[in-house]
This record gives sequence, C-alpha cells and structure tokens, in this order.
Amino acid sequence: MTSAPAFPIYPHRHLLGIKDLSPGDIELLLDRAEKAVAISRQPEKKTSTLRGRTQINLFYESSTRTQSSFELAGKRLGADVMNMSVASSSVKKGETLIDTAMTLNAMRPDILIIRHSSAGAAALLAQKVGCAVVNAGDGAHEHPTQALLDALTIRRAKGRIGRLTVAICGDILHSRVARSNIILLNALGAAVRVVAPSTLLPSGIRDMGVTVYNSMAEGLKGVDVVMMLRLQRERMAGAMVPSVREYFRYFGLDSEKLKAANDGALVMHPGPMNRGVEIASEIADGPQSVIQEQVEMGVAVRMAVMEALLDPRRDPEGRA
Amino acid sequence: MTSAPAFPIYPHRHLLGIKDLSPGDIELLLDRAEKAVAISRQPEKKTSTLRGRTQINLFYESSTRTQSSFELAGKRLGADVMNMSVASSSVKKGETLIDTAMTLNAMRPDILIIRHSSAGAAALLAQKVGCAVVNAGDGAHEHPTQALLDALTIRRAKGRIGRLTVAICGDILHSRVARSNIILLNALGAAVRVVAPSTLLPSGIRDMGVTVYNSMAEGLKGVDVVMMLRLQRERMAGAMVPSVREYFRYFGLDSEKLKAANDGALVMHPGPMNRGVEIASEIADGPQSVIQEQVEMGVAVRMAVMEALLDPRRDPEGRA
Amino acid sequence: MTSAPAFPIYPHRHLLGIKDLSPGDIELLLDRAEKAVAISRQPEKKTSTLRGRTQINLFYESSTRTQSSFELAGKRLGADVMNMSVASSSVKKGETLIDTAMTLNAMRPDILIIRHSSAGAAALLAQKVGCAVVNAGDGAHEHPTQALLDALTIRRAKGRIGRLTVAICGDILHSRVARSNIILLNALGAAVRVVAPSTLLPSGIRDMGVTVYNSMAEGLKGVDVVMMLRLQRERMAGAMVPSVREYFRYFGLDSEKLKAANDGALVMHPGPMNRGVEIASEIADGPQSVIQEQVEMGVAVRMAVMEALLDPRRDPEGRA
Repeated sequence: MTSAPAFPIYPHRHLLGIKDLSPGDIELLLDRAEKAVAISRQPEKKTSTLRGRTQINLFYESSTRTQSSFELAGKRLGADVMNMSVASSSVKKGETLIDTAMTLNAMRPDILIIRHSSAGAAALLAQKVGCAVVNAGDGAHEHPTQALLDALTIRRAKGRIGRLTVAICGDILHSRVARSNIILLNALGAAVRVVAPSTLLPSGIRDMGVTVYNSMAEGLKGVDVVMMLRLQRERMAGAMVPSVREYFRYFGLDSEKLKAANDGALVMHPGPMNRGVEIASEIADGPQSVIQEQVEMGVAVRMAVMEALLDPRRDPEGRA
Repeated sequence: MTSAPAFPIYPHRHLLGIKDLSPGDIELLLDRAEKAVAISRQPEKKTSTLRGRTQINLFYESSTRTQSSFELAGKRLGADVMNMSVASSSVKKGETLIDTAMTLNAMRPDILIIRHSSAGAAALLAQKVGCAVVNAGDGAHEHPTQALLDALTIRRAKGRIGRLTVAICGDILHSRVARSNIILLNALGAAVRVVAPSTLLPSGIRDMGVTVYNSMAEGLKGVDVVMMLRLQRERMAGAMVPSVREYFRYFGLDSEKLKAANDGALVMHPGPMNRGVEIASEIADGPQSVIQEQVEMGVAVRMAVMEALLDPRRDPEGRA
Repeated sequence: MTSAPAFPIYPHRHLLGIKDLSPGDIELLLDRAEKAVAISRQPEKKTSTLRGRTQINLFYESSTRTQSSFELAGKRLGADVMNMSVASSSVKKGETLIDTAMTLNAMRPDILIIRHSSAGAAALLAQKVGCAVVNAGDGAHEHPTQALLDALTIRRAKGRIGRLTVAICGDILHSRVARSNIILLNALGAAVRVVAPSTLLPSGIRDMGVTVYNSMAEGLKGVDVVMMLRLQRERMAGAMVPSVREYFRYFGLDSEKLKAANDGALVMHPGPMNRGVEIASEIADGPQSVIQEQVEMGVAVRMAVMEALLDPRRDPEGRA
C-alpha cells in the first residue's frame, strides 16, 4: 500500500456518492482495494500509510457492520480513529449537525465518515469542513462504499462487472444500497434489474436505467447475480407493513426461486439479514452465497477509499 | 514478552473455560502473567507482541471492569482493539448472535472476546469463527479469566495454590465466577468450600468437589482465602430476593466473621462490590483485602491469555 | 514536543482547578500548547511523548467536545486512550465513584480525565488514585482546561491577556466555565466583568474580583473580549426557566449589542451554542467570532496539560 506510484491519483476530495465517479475512478478504487485485501489476510494487518492522520466516525444512525468496518480500515492503515456516539453527544443539547461538524472540523481531522438519516447530509458537511468526507449512508440517497464492496465481490468471483446481469430484489423503496448499486453497475456496463412489489419501488425507478419486474420467477431468469435487500419494516407505517409470511412467499429468496438464475449465480445481501423474511437460511449459508465475502471486501474497500482520499500526491502540503 | 522461547507453547486455540485446562496449562498462563505484571508497572507499558493484530470485544452484557481490562490488555500488547457496543448494534435490527459473529469474523479479527448472558455462547462462537475466542463470561457457566486472575492473586500472596483451603461465599447459584474458581482451585490441589444459604446453591454443587457449609462461622474456620461473591439481586425473582439486612447479618463478611479464618487469610471479591450487603467496608478496605490487586492481575492475566492464544509458534502461518 | 529541556518543569501532579495555578504555571502551559497547535496542523499529527502511557476518560456527564478533545489529544501524543461510558458501567450495578476509580486505578493508568456532576469529584479522586488526575468539569465548580483554551485563544488573537477587559455574559450561576475563567483572567491581570440577570448570578460573585452588570449595553461598553455562556435551561426548575425570546432580547448577543464593545472585540462561546438564545447566528459565524479557534486550542491545551503532568523529569521513576 505504501508504493503509491503504482496507482494513478484519485481526483476527488470526498466520496459522497457513486454518481460522482467515472468508470475509471471506480476501477482505480477496486484495484487499490485488492491490495488491501492482502493486508487484512496477513497476521500483522497494519500499514503506516495514514499514521498520525485523524479519522472521525460520526454516526447518527447505528450500524454494527459499517462503523466497525470503517474503524478497522482506519486502524489497519495506522490512523487514529475516534467514534462519535451521537446518543451521548451534544446533539442532545440541541446542537445542529453543522455545528457538531464544525466543532469536529476545528479539531483538525483528516477524514470524517458520516452516516445520517437525511439525504444530502454528507454533501452538506463536505461544503463546510476542511477535511475529506466519506458518505457512509445518507437517508435513502447513497451508500457508495457498499456499492464498491459489492462490485469488488462480484469482480473477484466473476472476473468482471460488464455484461453481467444483476437482479436487485426486495425493498428498493427504502434502500440507498440499491440506489448506489444501480448507478455503479450501470456505469460499469452491467444489465440491472429490480425485482419488487410495486409498493416497494420508488416513483422514478424506471428512469434509472433498470428493467422492473414484479415477480421473482421472471426477474431472476438468467441472471448472474442476485442481490437481496433487507426488508426495512421499521421505516414503514401501519397498514403498509407487509406480512412477513406473505413477503417471504412471494419475494423471499429460497432454493426454488433461485433455480431461475444462471448456474453459479452469486447470492448477495448487505446485512443485517432477516432470515426467513427476504432470504431463506439454506440460501444465506449455501454455496452460492458470498455474503461473508462482502463483509471482508467492505474493510478492503474502505481502506482503499481512505488511502485514495488522503493520498499525499493529491495534496502535498497536507490539508491543514 | 517478546522472548517467546522462554515459554512452552500453549496448546489451545480458544479459552472457553477452566475445565478445558490441565494444571500445566494453568501454571503456564500464570507464569506468563507474571511477566505482564511487570510490563504494566513500567511507565511505558507497551509491547509490540500483538502489533497489527485485531481484537474485538463483543459484550452482550455490560461490564466496566472486564471489558476495560481486556481493552487495556490488548492495547498494551500493541493490538488494534475494537469494542462492539451491543446496545447500538444490529442486534436491534434482529440479527442473531451467530450472524453478528460471522460478520465480525469476516473482518478478519485475530481474537474475539465474548460476554453473553447464555451459557455456551462462547463455545458456539468458537465453532463458527476462524479466530481465537476468549470467554469473558457466559451466563452462569464459566468466566475463566476471572478464575485465573484470582489464582494469580493467591499465588503471589501465598506462594502457592495447592494445599490451601479456600471458602467461596454467597450467591453461588448465579455465579460463573464461583464455578470457574471451583474447577481451577480443585485442579491445582486446593481444598474448596462453598458457604451459602441453601437457596443460593445450585443443585449439583455437591458433585463439584466442594464441601458445603450453610454458616459463615463454620465455613470460614481455618481457611486461607475468603472469596466473597456479589449478591446478584437483579437475577432473582420477587419473593426469592433476600432482604439486604438479613443477608448481611448472616452472610455478609465483617470483622467478627473473618476472625474464624486463619490469621492473614486473604479477602477477595470479583467486583463490583455491594458494600454493606455481602461485605463490610471495613473488610473491603482492610489490610487482608487483595481486591485491588485482583483488578491489577486481571489485566496481566488477559495479556497472558491473548499472547498465548496468538503465539506465532502455535500457528506459524497465521490464522487468516 | 520531545525537546523537553526547552520548558521548565510543571510542578503539579494534577490539574484540578485554575485556582491552584500561579501565573507562571498558566503561562508555561500556554507556551507548551503553542507547540501542540503546530503538531495538530501537520498532516502527520503524532508524537511519541506519551507512548505506552494509559489515559482513561471517565465521563459521568456526556460531552461531545470535551471528551473528543481529550481523546484526540491523548492519541496525538501516542497514549493508549480508553473511554469509560458510564451509562454502560458498573455504576448501574450500584458501584460508587470511589470504587469505580479505585478499580480503574488498579489497572495502572497514568492519567485519569474525570467529568462529574458534583463539585469536588476530581479532587476526591486525586486523593485516592496513584495517577495524575485532570478535572474535565466538576459540577458548577471548575473546568480548568476550558479556561486555559480560552486564554490561549485570546493570547493568540490579542497578543496578551493582561490589561484586557473581558465581559463574561449570561448564565453565570450554572457555569464552571465562568468560574475558571474569572480566576484565570484575574490571575493574568485582565479586568473581568460579568453581565447577567440577577437571577443567573451566584451569591458570592462580587467577592470574585469582578464588576457586575445587569445590562449588556453597559457591560459590553469598551470591552476587548465578549465571552458568551450557554443558557443551561436543563438545570433550571419550572418557573425559573427564562423565556427564550425574552432572554435573547435582553441578553442574547446580536450585532446591535456588540457595537458597544471595542472595535475588533473577540466573540467567544464554549459550545454547544443555542443559536438565537444566547447568541445570534450572524455573530456566531461573523468575523469577530473565534469560536472555532477555541475548539482547536482545546486539543492543544489538553495535549500540553497531559504532557506537563506526565513529564518524566518530574517523576523520573514513573508513577507505578
């Protein structure tokens, strides 16, 4: 990772969404992430690339896997990592997101990782602070590192992204994961389908370059990758909450439905899974599942992103 | 700590319970812990033994002292330590223990420290993950590092464990501490007594190689070590909760009851103490108390355990 | 920071309050802090001054900025930093402050940072533990690092503290910030005014070497520095809580009221701000505001304090 000249220079100061990235940017990040995979597989999983750099994880929504993944990524790069638990923060005393961010910014971090329930929160922050900002999920908008880790997982298993057919299935309406994945997969030349009941589709979905299916049998026919989404029942109101039993029957991935996909089709899920709701355990733990590998690729992709954003060749004077 | 050849190699991959350990294993860990005591007493309390190793503390029950102790132990060995606060984790979103563990496992930790309210949780995890697992307390089952730190404290004060008489007093029923200590002390040749009201004794206690007493006056007569346990009132239901005043009168350790023990008998408590319930302040803070030393030995024992489990001579290729 | 001989030796073992410091002690800490400012402005903001030292942040009241500031300060000095979240600690199981502190002390920390709602908590701890103690706010008593960071901010902007006129405005009654600042500013020769409604003034305020004003128009006339305080409505009972609208009208700092101060008077606030209550946004974000710089100076001052307390020349054998 320290042999920086091996990579071209990533041109962006922040990672706010996949929509800002060219196909070349994406490939560059995936190539860097391959090196990071190797580091995390060594006994001594540590570099000094970000030694003395300050990373702050500012999570307004809790998340086991995303926050942990960023934390380990930073530590393995040698950064000083600080988690901001919002439950115990000044937010309770009525401070705004911007005031909190400005306060943290004054402490001279090098990189701020932000998760927030409002679309656009990361972009707002990026305008205000002097450091790099990574969007770790903003409302139903984007979750770019999730899309990158999914792409890396697919590329490692299938050798490419282009010309694959990928079905994204389930609760598209509430999913920033779906949104970032649709943008990335289209950018790299995959054919993208969404498979969902019409109540779980956002209104503009047909303008996003996807083919829409309302049936798993049709939607999975001949696909190379099946991406399941978590049913976000906690974001649904009263009568709109589907019955779990009904949902699983029509949209839960089981071995019967998976038969429609190509042989050796990958099964993916961003986690945390609702077993027996959107995915059967036999599939989640089965031979086509790459769900655990997705998690591993998550750490690698986040290492690559942070390294790229803080690459001293971009900004030789530092950012202070 | 880095001069590994000085120690024989610890044969186990995990530390799930004292019951898996031979007397030789126990002595080996206590000997290693002696070196760790010296490290923590230096101004620069830091080695590079576990540099670049990832330690995850996964605590489903909160604990000031145990989690802190493992955290400091890992940091002093140079590991990258990550705490998983379960209150803010995906568990809220309905993820199972195994799914959470598999997710963390995919992030390539070297060691996972687990505390859980269910007996057997640590063993279950150990079957599923690819890294070392340390049981930091599982239900009423075992808490092996507590027994090791107690043994180290006794050995330093008395020069040995064998042929000592040790009384474990109070809420045996709810205590994994008692259970692990009984196994360890028996293994090293101590005579073990339990002293408790019959309502606070588990049913199979007489098969564990202990002598049972229902009176402090009888049970403490001639003992070398008095281990008090915390009265875990929060685990008791309605009518079964003893009155604090009555409990202290009959089973609380005060200077009068302590007179029955041998001169210079050690007084121990795993903490946190209920002063005036199971122990009088005059005793907790008195000259026979080694309660603070137990805490110090806790850090040392945990350093020794983690070092032993990750000793590169056991597994020269690393664990990845 | 490692060229220790450049500084005289700080004589105190703890930092409990400004009242314990001589003017020379204060200047020494501010001079050290200037070096720390430079470190945090580098890309690699890291020294090894406190490598292997253990810092514990024990916060009984939550605080984004103070805890974060101490955490980053420690990490940038190379210390191992552990945060104790009291919400998840043994305090829930009924352990006293002293027992918690004694437990942590037995883990051989080098420095304990304590915030507590009771005046005197830090001093009580300092009597019990074997390590250095820093008061990060104890009730309405003192918050010495806040006063030091305010002094550093003023000194950098104005070149001196002595002979300046400083107005501290608002909720003096509930403010340890006010108290520590009054003591420090008086010690360094500033003229200190307090400006507040009489209901928000503590009874002994006139004995603290300040001039008391009940009107902003009078109190700000000719001052060089305006320090606003947060209105701590959460500490006020029923009928005593002022109306926000009324409060802002009479005591909130806006551009009209600020005109009374000298040209280029500094505007300060310890944060978190209640915009529109004690300060108008136009002022908080305006050209005279040094509120962000205060936060930056906070990290620097805390680095200086911890370095000074752990300076090996004070205590060459270490503290263990």
